[in-house]
Amino acid sequence: MSPDPVGIWLIGAWGGVSTTAVVGLAALQHRPASETALVSALPAFRLLDLAEWGRFVVGGHEIRRTGYALEARKLHDESRVFSRELLSGVSGPLDSFDRNVRTGTLLGVGRTIESLASDDARATSGERPREAIERLSADLNAFREAHNLAHVIVVNLASTEPTLDEDLTGLTWQQLSDRLNHNDPLLPASSLYAISAMLAECSYLNFTPSVGSNLPALDELAREQGVLHMGRDGKTGETLLKSVLAPMFAARNLKVLSWVGHNIFGNMDARVLDDPVNKASKARSKDHLLTEILGYKPQTLVSIEFIESLADWKTAWDHIHFEGFLGTQMTMQFIWQGCDSLLAAPLVLDLVRFTEREWRRGTSGVMTHLASFFKSPMGEHIPPEFGRQFELLLAWAAEAAGKSPDG
Amino acid sequence: MSPDPVGIWLIGAWGGVSTTAVVGLAALQHRPASETALVSALPAFRLLDLAEWGRFVVGGHEIRRTGYALEARKLHDESRVFSRELLSGVSGPLDSFDRNVRTGTLLGVGRTIESLASDDARATSGERPREAIERLSADLNAFREAHNLAHVIVVNLASTEPTLDEDLTGLTWQQLSDRLNHNDPLLPASSLYAISAMLAECSYLNFTPSVGSNLPALDELAREQGVLHMGRDGKTGETLLKSVLAPMFAARNLKVLSWVGHNIFGNMDARVLDDPVNKASKARSKDHLLTEILGYKPQTLVSIEFIESLADWKTAWDHIHFEGFLGTQMTMQFIWQGCDSLLAAPLVLDLVRFTEREWRRGTSGVMTHLASFFKSPMGEHIPPEFGRQFELLLAWAAEAAGKSPDG
Amino acid sequence: MSPDPVGIWLIGAWGGVSTTAVVGLAALQHRPASETALVSALPAFRLLDLAEWGRFVVGGHEIRRTGYALEARKLHDESRVFSRELLSGVSGPLDSFDRNVRTGTLLGVGRTIESLASDDARATSGERPREAIERLSADLNAFREAHNLAHVIVVNLASTEPTLDEDLTGLTWQQLSDRLNHNDPLLPASSLYAISAMLAECSYLNFTPSVGSNLPALDELAREQGVLHMGRDGKTGETLLKSVLAPMFAARNLKVLSWVGHNIFGNMDARVLDDPVNKASKARSKDHLLTEILGYKPQTLVSIEFIESLADWKTAWDHIHFEGFLGTQMTMQFIWQGCDSLLAAPLVLDLVRFTEREWRRGTSGVMTHLASFFKSPMGEHIPPEFGRQFELLLAWAAEAAGKSPDG
Amino acid sequence: MSPDPVGIWLIGAWGGVSTTAVVGLAALQHRPASETALVSALPAFRLLDLAEWGRFVVGGHEIRRTGYALEARKLHDESRVFSRELLSGVSGPLDSFDRNVRTGTLLGVGRTIESLASDDARATSGERPREAIERLSADLNAFREAHNLAHVIVVNLASTEPTLDEDLTGLTWQQLSDRLNHNDPLLPASSLYAISAMLAECSYLNFTPSVGSNLPALDELAREQGVLHMGRDGKTGETLLKSVLAPMFAARNLKVLSWVGHNIFGNMDARVLDDPVNKASKARSKDHLLTEILGYKPQTLVSIEFIESLADWKTAWDHIHFEGFLGTQMTMQFIWQGCDSLLAAPLVLDLVRFTEREWRRGTSGVMTHLASFFKSPMGEHIPPEFGRQFELLLAWAAEAAGKSPDG
Repeated sequence: MSPDPVGIWLIGAWGGVSTTAVVGLAALQHRPASETALVSALPAFRLLDLAEWGRFVVGGHEIRRTGYALEARKLHDESRVFSRELLSGVSGPLDSFDRNVRTGTLLGVGRTIESLASDDARATSGERPREAIERLSADLNAFREAHNLAHVIVVNLASTEPTLDEDLTGLTWQQLSDRLNHNDPLLPASSLYAISAMLAECSYLNFTPSVGSNLPALDELAREQGVLHMGRDGKTGETLLKSVLAPMFAARNLKVLSWVGHNIFGNMDARVLDDPVNKASKARSKDHLLTEILGYKPQTLVSIEFIESLADWKTAWDHIHFEGFLGTQMTMQFIWQGCDSLLAAPLVLDLVRFTEREWRRGTSGVMTHLASFFKSPMGEHIPPEFGRQFELLLAWAAEAAGKSPDG
Repeated sequence: MSPDPVGIWLIGAWGGVSTTAVVGLAALQHRPASETALVSALPAFRLLDLAEWGRFVVGGHEIRRTGYALEARKLHDESRVFSRELLSGVSGPLDSFDRNVRTGTLLGVGRTIESLASDDARATSGERPREAIERLSADLNAFREAHNLAHVIVVNLASTEPTLDEDLTGLTWQQLSDRLNHNDPLLPASSLYAISAMLAECSYLNFTPSVGSNLPALDELAREQGVLHMGRDGKTGETLLKSVLAPMFAARNLKVLSWVGHNIFGNMDARVLDDPVNKASKARSKDHLLTEILGYKPQTLVSIEFIESLADWKTAWDHIHFEGFLGTQMTMQFIWQGCDSLLAAPLVLDLVRFTEREWRRGTSGVMTHLASFFKSPMGEHIPPEFGRQFELLLAWAAEAAGKSPDG
Repeated sequence: MSPDPVGIWLIGAWGGVSTTAVVGLAALQHRPASETALVSALPAFRLLDLAEWGRFVVGGHEIRRTGYALEARKLHDESRVFSRELLSGVSGPLDSFDRNVRTGTLLGVGRTIESLASDDARATSGERPREAIERLSADLNAFREAHNLAHVIVVNLASTEPTLDEDLTGLTWQQLSDRLNHNDPLLPASSLYAISAMLAECSYLNFTPSVGSNLPALDELAREQGVLHMGRDGKTGETLLKSVLAPMFAARNLKVLSWVGHNIFGNMDARVLDDPVNKASKARSKDHLLTEILGYKPQTLVSIEFIESLADWKTAWDHIHFEGFLGTQMTMQFIWQGCDSLLAAPLVLDLVRFTEREWRRGTSGVMTHLASFFKSPMGEHIPPEFGRQFELLLAWAAEAAGKSPDG
Repeated sequence: MSPDPVGIWLIGAWGGVSTTAVVGLAALQHRPASETALVSALPAFRLLDLAEWGRFVVGGHEIRRTGYALEARKLHDESRVFSRELLSGVSGPLDSFDRNVRTGTLLGVGRTIESLASDDARATSGERPREAIERLSADLNAFREAHNLAHVIVVNLASTEPTLDEDLTGLTWQQLSDRLNHNDPLLPASSLYAISAMLAECSYLNFTPSVGSNLPALDELAREQGVLHMGRDGKTGETLLKSVLAPMFAARNLKVLSWVGHNIFGNMDARVLDDPVNKASKARSKDHLLTEILGYKPQTLVSIEFIESLADWKTAWDHIHFEGFLGTQMTMQFIWQGCDSLLAAPLVLDLVRFTEREWRRGTSGVMTHLASFFKSPMGEHIPPEFGRQFELLLAWAAEAAGKSPDG
């Protein structure tokens, strides 16, 4: 008897990364597709007994009105990704996943994201936070029941929200919960989704720099509910390279004088980040890393600019000015030309698979072994170097493969 | 009572890397100089009780006729390195180190290097290999006695030799030794120097891609003589970056389609590599790495070109073409603009310090924990990833700091 | 009454540039297609009364056996160019052009190109040069008659041939013609095609670095026959940039110390250039330019490497090291990522249109006003700067627009 | 009898560009120095009878308190320019030029520049505009008399000022002059200096993006006074390249989709531009060019960032995204690593020489033939392409060499 299916619930369900993840999943389920770029497909994880691709069912919350096939076709036209054969081969599954998408919430998303909303989404704008949470949780429970799902993993892939004005790290779950009754959206949407997920006994992953579950109160809730969570901000391009290159400068005692990173791209994400309120969250997430790895703070500059013609192709130019022996100044530059959604989407599928596997082990709380996937990994004592973060994943895999009753 | 001094014996004593190492050492000994770029100065090695800079005395073998002050001045003029204040502050020590330089051997260096030789060096060209070894060994013994040295560490910094025609890996030390009587320079100069060093009870480090001590017969000799050795080919620029970046592509399951590296520079090293016979050794040393790290062989191309105007400034452009999710092709490029001698010289000083420390522990043979310094590290089961190689050094340091009777 | 059609006869008819030119022409004829990248579509040439796209008919010589639709589909798959809609929209015209392709000659193409030949092409290998010329001329005459063509313009787009061993610049047409009787392929294929074209009263354009019509004897023949010709080597990427950038260094009296250009790509052209015999012609064509523009010879290096994964995407990295005021050394680098066939093809269509226009004016011989299209333009007193070459084209256009009886 | 000396009066006399120009001039006067990077030293201008370097005397206005030798030494230390031999060889002349520097004005320079001022400069802050003009003019007259100068050419090299709030282009000189009596600094310092220069019968050049003499009223004054003027904003790096490269895209009908330029450097200029009020003038000056050359407006972005470690080394990364044939998108990137002061200084000396030569011809008003030196050249009907602007200079030279009574 084959095991029960597993649910993937995407916040920002019809966005670029979600669409790409869903196209990729459908291809892995219905056509012979390559597993290139899927970390979970590496030989190192072969003994882990990860869930087969065929077991996953997709649903999600969204505040715009569109569909997978349409968004995928747009990506194809604007960014020259996906072959036409691929798209026609997965159109059936895409339509069926479309039917699982429900209206999200606009509470705490900021003005720029609000301006993109459909009428359905706008119609919910009178909700108080607790009402929104109840509606979103109900969607998750209905999804689980309709598809007989063993577990549902919620992944936040929505555009970056403005930063929080208030420091909420001192609150307990009880204190936070009390405030949800008031018509005061003190929490950003990403945290409301996290609470909804946890109350519905779903695990929660935050692939964006938004707050999400990164509050002590929500970790408390996760443990109470016996669910897993992790975040923040998928590490796909420039920051990945920083976490790979900075350790080399540190290990060689080369003194970084300045590190300038200039990012240009033209997808929806970039358009939202063009609003300075939203950009602040992002730049913050990209910048703390160097100081942690190097042990001192060089002058750094991270700029992110919306250049429409580039569509989903993110180009990053990094200029690293460093001092070598006897005061000699040298330079390293790199240019990264990657397709943003195609870099992020496989990591989303990997995270879901690894989370499902950990859920089977029966633990709850923050999954620090997934640190290598994130720009600002949650949890304590996490090394900032990518290499060391990846060793955490390998160590977890070895342990999980060994201890697993079914592995 | 202060401990006995330690000898550093440089093969290619007046070359660019040697000169820079000696200028740097003199600066560390006689002026307040920064320890930037010295790995051994990192906090991680503070408890190791490494030798103070003041304890080192320099000598060496050379086949050209020049001197440290002159070569340092040339580097300053052509490559805009070293301040004039620095050079005038170390002129005394440079002159005293000059007096310890002796005539090297031309046996097996190849035509291009021969063409650079002084009359003194040409005068030795009638020597048979065994005679050359005896002369070189005698120089080392005289150096030790003259300066009352606790130990002498020989470092090969000479230009790259042509590759070996004959496979000598099957020979024992006895078999190899027997052949040294014949007037047949089957061994390259780098190996003759290694033998001379070991017979004189010195440790031997090979910072070049030449053969040096990389033969089973010479490891046998090292163990017999109770000395340490390691090589080959200092990892300073493009290959360092490859060993740092390729693990990222592997960990993310991104498929490298092609990796092109184009190196241009204009120092003596580049001039010697302009002879295709010498270049073969170098390109081989730079290329095997990717296959080891990735587990498959992408198309690779490494070119090295002599561009005179660049002098010691090595510029490397690397173009990495890779496949991501769903067949999407992406690109990363980097440009490295480093000053070759200034990158290499501090590593030479680090290697000497780490070797002296290990010699105090009383071991002999290959020092695999120094793998992170080399493009093609000698020894068994060495991971090709820079991060993992550096962990070997940290682990050795922890062990040495703990076990050391004096540490 | 609409004017008679004009013939375009492509040597290397099914190669990448030819295929792209033909796809583009068909798109301009049958669908609303953008004229971006067509020089002849610039406002500056609006008054010239150039031939409408609909008037052109395509034929050609080829030594491989394939077809336009197949080659276009291959370009789409390997290099992600042309949309599927475009390809399906032009499949009819492509098939009809296929029917005008005839078997070329293998005389003097070199071993690498020979290895690509179809059986049909191999079957002609017993021909003497004069026989080949007669056959090729007959194909051109038949093409003209079949389609009632006002004029036929032959364009050489075949892969680069080995350089000539013998200097033929001293020969008259009579002397050269006499030697064509012998079974001695002293002339490369490109020149045999040029002779065939001229004897059939067609104009001839050489878009490759091969010899083609670049011999005094052939210019004599062109004038005798009243036809036009021009070459050599389409200026599409790195050399175009050199002819644009070097004048700036000259005008500012900045002294270029070295100019290194590294080209990587993976199409058929690159594969043929991987044979050193063929590469020699190409590198020569790319290198003389700097000396002409700067008035002195800096160290230059042009390398061209076959990197299969890049397919038609040619990436060039150029590193320009220059000296400014008071001996200060500075650097400019550029990276060009262009699709080779898509850069070349519109220029082919432009050249044909400009040639047809000049033919209507009744002149013959070398068309120096087309210099801006070529790396090594034929003719006397041609400025090497791109800007000045383009002014020649503008001046010709002004004159032709003014003087033309029908303009 | 040797001709009278000529005065160069620098506004911002001890800034980086001024200091470099003065060091260079002193080197040309007192030591055998190379004329590399001096446009006026090109063979094309040999027949012009330009003034010998030995004829120039330097003075200037400055609001900081320092000196040439000190500033030159700072450039040497921070940016590794000038050899020590050069600096010691010109210390005498530098000291004598120092004695000709007078206190400038702070009227209309903006807060950031004010914060750099010496006490002497602050002491003038009560002046009304007309008083400042009278004082500055008196300094110029005194300089001319003291050194018996044939003509004085004032060059504005001060840091960039904030943009003007009020549109003054409608005013006549009389109307503008009337307002100078009020204690209302409606004019920026650069224009006050221009008026002072013209009233003292000096010519005026504006090497910065500040307003300077770029007002109809001031052109009127220049003609009345019989003096020459020109500006604005020396074209030294990224913009020079834009004016060279954009014409290529235009000539080939390649459609520029976006052009992103990112500039990083760390000198005083960059520090002042770090104030957004000052940056606005600069970015405006760099951006209009593309639209003029291309004939349409692609998305453009010019960012300028202060990165302290780079000192005078300006690095610009430009990313040009363009569309070729059949909608194919391609990319060109360039990286410019130039030393800002060393690029600008020779142009200042050239401009002075060319201006002195034109003054001898007896004309007055705007010198449009100097357009190639400026980012935003003053005057009517000036082509935006660098190549065409340089042709204007060549044409002027031909005319001046021919017509000159003394040439």
